[in-house]
Amino acid sequence: MQKVKAAIVGASGYSGEELVALLARHPRVEIVAVTSRQAAGQAVGEVFPRMAGSSIAGMKFVEPSVDALQKTGAATVFLALPHGLAAEFAAPLRKAGVQVVDLSADFRLKSAEVFAEFYGEKHPAPELLAESVYSLPEICAEAALKGAGVLACPGCYPTSILVPLVPLLRRKLIEPDSIVINSLSGVSGAGRKADVALLFAECNESLRAYGAPKHRHLSEIEQELCVAAGAKVTVNFTPHLVPVTRGMISTIVVKPTAGTDAKAVEAAWREAYQGRPFVRIVTHLPDSKHVTNTNFVDIAVREDARTGRLLLFSALDNLGKGAASQAVQAFNVSQGWDEATGLV
Amino acid sequence: MQKVKAAIVGASGYSGEELVALLARHPRVEIVAVTSRQAAGQAVGEVFPRMAGSSIAGMKFVEPSVDALQKTGAATVFLALPHGLAAEFAAPLRKAGVQVVDLSADFRLKSAEVFAEFYGEKHPAPELLAESVYSLPEICAEAALKGAGVLACPGCYPTSILVPLVPLLRRKLIEPDSIVINSLSGVSGAGRKADVALLFAECNESLRAYGAPKHRHLSEIEQELCVAAGAKVTVNFTPHLVPVTRGMISTIVVKPTAGTDAKAVEAAWREAYQGRPFVRIVTHLPDSKHVTNTNFVDIAVREDARTGRLLLFSALDNLGKGAASQAVQAFNVSQGWDEATGLV
Amino acid sequence: MQKVKAAIVGASGYSGEELVALLARHPRVEIVAVTSRQAAGQAVGEVFPRMAGSSIAGMKFVEPSVDALQKTGAATVFLALPHGLAAEFAAPLRKAGVQVVDLSADFRLKSAEVFAEFYGEKHPAPELLAESVYSLPEICAEAALKGAGVLACPGCYPTSILVPLVPLLRRKLIEPDSIVINSLSGVSGAGRKADVALLFAECNESLRAYGAPKHRHLSEIEQELCVAAGAKVTVNFTPHLVPVTRGMISTIVVKPTAGTDAKAVEAAWREAYQGRPFVRIVTHLPDSKHVTNTNFVDIAVREDARTGRLLLFSALDNLGKGAASQAVQAFNVSQGWDEATGLV
Amino acid sequence: MQKVKAAIVGASGYSGEELVALLARHPRVEIVAVTSRQAAGQAVGEVFPRMAGSSIAGMKFVEPSVDALQKTGAATVFLALPHGLAAEFAAPLRKAGVQVVDLSADFRLKSAEVFAEFYGEKHPAPELLAESVYSLPEICAEAALKGAGVLACPGCYPTSILVPLVPLLRRKLIEPDSIVINSLSGVSGAGRKADVALLFAECNESLRAYGAPKHRHLSEIEQELCVAAGAKVTVNFTPHLVPVTRGMISTIVVKPTAGTDAKAVEAAWREAYQGRPFVRIVTHLPDSKHVTNTNFVDIAVREDARTGRLLLFSALDNLGKGAASQAVQAFNVSQGWDEATGLV
Repeated sequence: MQKVKAAIVGASGYSGEELVALLARHPRVEIVAVTSRQAAGQAVGEVFPRMAGSSIAGMKFVEPSVDALQKTGAATVFLALPHGLAAEFAAPLRKAGVQVVDLSADFRLKSAEVFAEFYGEKHPAPELLAESVYSLPEICAEAALKGAGVLACPGCYPTSILVPLVPLLRRKLIEPDSIVINSLSGVSGAGRKADVALLFAECNESLRAYGAPKHRHLSEIEQELCVAAGAKVTVNFTPHLVPVTRGMISTIVVKPTAGTDAKAVEAAWREAYQGRPFVRIVTHLPDSKHVTNTNFVDIAVREDARTGRLLLFSALDNLGKGAASQAVQAFNVSQGWDEATGLV
Repeated sequence: MQKVKAAIVGASGYSGEELVALLARHPRVEIVAVTSRQAAGQAVGEVFPRMAGSSIAGMKFVEPSVDALQKTGAATVFLALPHGLAAEFAAPLRKAGVQVVDLSADFRLKSAEVFAEFYGEKHPAPELLAESVYSLPEICAEAALKGAGVLACPGCYPTSILVPLVPLLRRKLIEPDSIVINSLSGVSGAGRKADVALLFAECNESLRAYGAPKHRHLSEIEQELCVAAGAKVTVNFTPHLVPVTRGMISTIVVKPTAGTDAKAVEAAWREAYQGRPFVRIVTHLPDSKHVTNTNFVDIAVREDARTGRLLLFSALDNLGKGAASQAVQAFNVSQGWDEATGLV
Repeated sequence: MQKVKAAIVGASGYSGEELVALLARHPRVEIVAVTSRQAAGQAVGEVFPRMAGSSIAGMKFVEPSVDALQKTGAATVFLALPHGLAAEFAAPLRKAGVQVVDLSADFRLKSAEVFAEFYGEKHPAPELLAESVYSLPEICAEAALKGAGVLACPGCYPTSILVPLVPLLRRKLIEPDSIVINSLSGVSGAGRKADVALLFAECNESLRAYGAPKHRHLSEIEQELCVAAGAKVTVNFTPHLVPVTRGMISTIVVKPTAGTDAKAVEAAWREAYQGRPFVRIVTHLPDSKHVTNTNFVDIAVREDARTGRLLLFSALDNLGKGAASQAVQAFNVSQGWDEATGLV
Repeated sequence: MQKVKAAIVGASGYSGEELVALLARHPRVEIVAVTSRQAAGQAVGEVFPRMAGSSIAGMKFVEPSVDALQKTGAATVFLALPHGLAAEFAAPLRKAGVQVVDLSADFRLKSAEVFAEFYGEKHPAPELLAESVYSLPEICAEAALKGAGVLACPGCYPTSILVPLVPLLRRKLIEPDSIVINSLSGVSGAGRKADVALLFAECNESLRAYGAPKHRHLSEIEQELCVAAGAKVTVNFTPHLVPVTRGMISTIVVKPTAGTDAKAVEAAWREAYQGRPFVRIVTHLPDSKHVTNTNFVDIAVREDARTGRLLLFSALDNLGKGAASQAVQAFNVSQGWDEATGLV
């Protein structure tokens, strides 16, 4: 079986490290390059002591450059870069016919104007937006993903929110203007960057909301909710930073449309996610510790008879289903493989 | 200055320990007894190594009994017991003219029926409900608290929710049927009890909602919100367990009434809490780490222009303002002292 | 390829859960039963929500009994039980010709007297001691392990200590009477048991030594060190409980014999562990976070020129190389398979 | 009662913040200035939200300069600065007759050569070394501390090590060449600095030794041990970083001299620390959670009959007795006040 040659750019961050680990044991992938400005010249096993002893422990990080990437013969390049920077690689790589799997926000929004509104800068490569696919495999059309040239992989918050909500909006089971979302994220979601606010001594024994009321992820959340509802959807979204390394949960309060109860929600989920191995409809309230280091997203529903609202719950690993493993899942689908290849 | 003789019953739990520490350095209190079934016979400094070296390190825990408490001459008894059990002490103590400061749920609800609905058992001492005062000092009438015989101290969730909401409902600044509350609690809130679900290895790296949609604290939350609104108020309330020892935050989404904006909210808070040392109206989003080991509750507001809703935030220490130090604060007011006595 | 039928007894504890997860994806094992007193009647996917969606999610836990185990046709039974209880299963199972892989302390000591000294009770099945193999695959003779009927799997502390020390004692590179060991363990090492001392609120923000100076694991540590040294070895060993869920490190201070330096230590390790995939000789100081959820043990050495002593360091996952995955590794060797089967 | 005017330089770090909090409620101190490069222009209550509502919440941080400090009329200046930088302030301040309480390493060593060896740079103000007092109040001579011009406050590791060891060396109860020290430190000990290695996601679920075999604090540890022993003392010292915000424990293994047992050790401690409120000789193994946010250091001893060695244990708060509150304690003694002033 021929393997797909793949490179990972920005591989020394948390999502990048996760990608390297996943792709190193992927049966249909050959890693041909890993890049990192800070780690260039060092071996994978040195930079990630956890990977010492793995098959690519000896591979050296290289300086990122489009030229160098092309010379590796990579057919697919995974970008684990900050927004803005990702597009600088994606544009020339696409011209050269390379498939781009982007974990940044650069190609998630269909509208360059919305990007400018939420990210405070002009979109760096608007010409690629039409081609890009919002690559949440359980939500997007399989046909769109197959053979896609630019996979725009969703963020962790959007994944935790779209998986429970999209099937309900598509089936008009909930009122689109009633959605209130609270999410809790582990600290690795903020990236491996030297920032005093992310120090152990600042995050431990600390609970705090942040980014309210207009977190950047809100733009892609609402874009996809609008598509699902076929109408304008505006939501309240409040993210919180809590002291876990990995993990994310979302609690969503919605008003059901007439006749919708918890059973109807579960039925809609079962129908939508039938045969999808990574969405688990659970009866307990989801707990992030049951999904860390996996590609699962657990979802559950409760009726609040007193207020007539429904409570939706989800849990995932912000670096797994919320980032790296979901990117691999989408890549699998784009290649026409089983979506779970290399993920179980 | 004559000191008030006080006893603490159920002193070996987390709230009890906190009460012992606070009252031991309270300038107007003399601790005459601490009781605990498990710790009876042991000294305070043994059971709480943190208190070795304090003035009451050598005091022995005794078996709890109403007789023994009366013999100590205690004028006030603090009850840090599970619900149901607290009433068994409160009733005879009241008959004997002793002031009761109760940290359990037994006397928080005005209605024995609501108690039965939420706690699943008959109220153990309904005859005391009329006399009891829901003792959130910044919310309840000072006149009611002064000289009160039964202080029903609020739980941690209610305190974090009522402080931001009550002034707004009183002034009709928000829609009573629009309230969606998400709260995060540290693990000490569940008490010092041998329960597998509370083990370090179960709570660390874990994020989970629980008790939804009908947590017991909802009963007192709604009781007090109804009083404030002068109308029926039903809310969505979802508590979450997160890996901190101490700390609690609440995030509340509400629809404002016409003309209410963030400034109006802050103005209402300033008016309501003028001169109250323990409510801090802050401009940043409250962080539990800034209030742990204090009696402060920090509150803040944000407008979400996109949905037209308001976001209210609060942070407190679940064992401090959410339990023991608030009980001391209420007790201070009941005695006619400055509410901050012994708390700063 | 025919699979070996295996059962796991005491499967609802932390080590048991880990074993179930490992054996469920082991290519040469078929799990035929999982037992648990508390969980009997429930499905694996219910008791371990993390395993929902796995191949054995629907398997029901059964009450543990030797009869029931035999009826399953299990050729190998893994025992993840407290000491004393394990022997009650091991003895009849051995009589019936079943291979026993025991994670408890029951068969680690060659001497029933030493067992009685350290565990405070008579050995429950001394007749099996001769047959049992202390199954640290990198230390024990492969010939002894192959086909062994009773695999006595080492504890987490002993593994972290024996791996760095045994090759040095065998080669007389260090003074046997100079060994001072300090170990740090994550809380899962104490098991999934309802114990106030293991609550999150007791272990978080807490650092404490315990079990000094005569922790039970000392007995097997010294037994194996004596074998390696060919002489009596007595060591200082102080375990500490620290707030991580998984992970263990040991720091060992020793006096080298004349001429031994760090290079000689590393050379001895390289020779001893050549070709062994799970021992990594590293140049940085080992960090538990690089080995959690793996079967690796990382070791390193430093010279302290000022005191003339050597510092040895190790890190492993107390539930992995310190328990479940090491048991699987030893089982692999006992079956004549590659030791890494099912572990990478 | 006249108050002493005090300034805190470098007040925005962890030790600095702690000093500000302690001195703000010290009954005999008036804070006249707090300095910080990063925080200059901001109010104390903004930079430290925990201190909003305190008496000095409104005080503005100023740029640090010797001139500015002198103009405040400060009689005492606390320096919470990195080593090297502290001396730049200390030298001119001393010339101006200002008392300096230094929390850095600049004046702890009597020898500029040892400073150069351990800190890799020339001592910045050797002329002050003779005047400086190593200000561990329970160890140093009260007469030296009274009226001292330069208080060199010990680091956290040295405090946790010297308190248990010094009385034993002074009385020749232990063998000076037998000392092996292992210490565990909370992450706040590394300071509030943007460093990837100190991120929550790097420190959580991580256990690691570091700085071995020649940590900088070793220089002052051995200096003081030599003084106590009246002879050369060289020790093994291995610090470890563990995931707590605050807290430190040390475990020390020593050989007793003939006739010394645990009772002799406790007797020596009782004699040495009689009347000292902050050293607690405990019978349980010290736990850092019992001393956080206090100025206590807990110590205990165990005999290891099997090896003939003694185990000494200590616990303190690295920002309390290991830094800020100990500095205040030493300052109290230097002023001729009760050492506990403002600390209980």
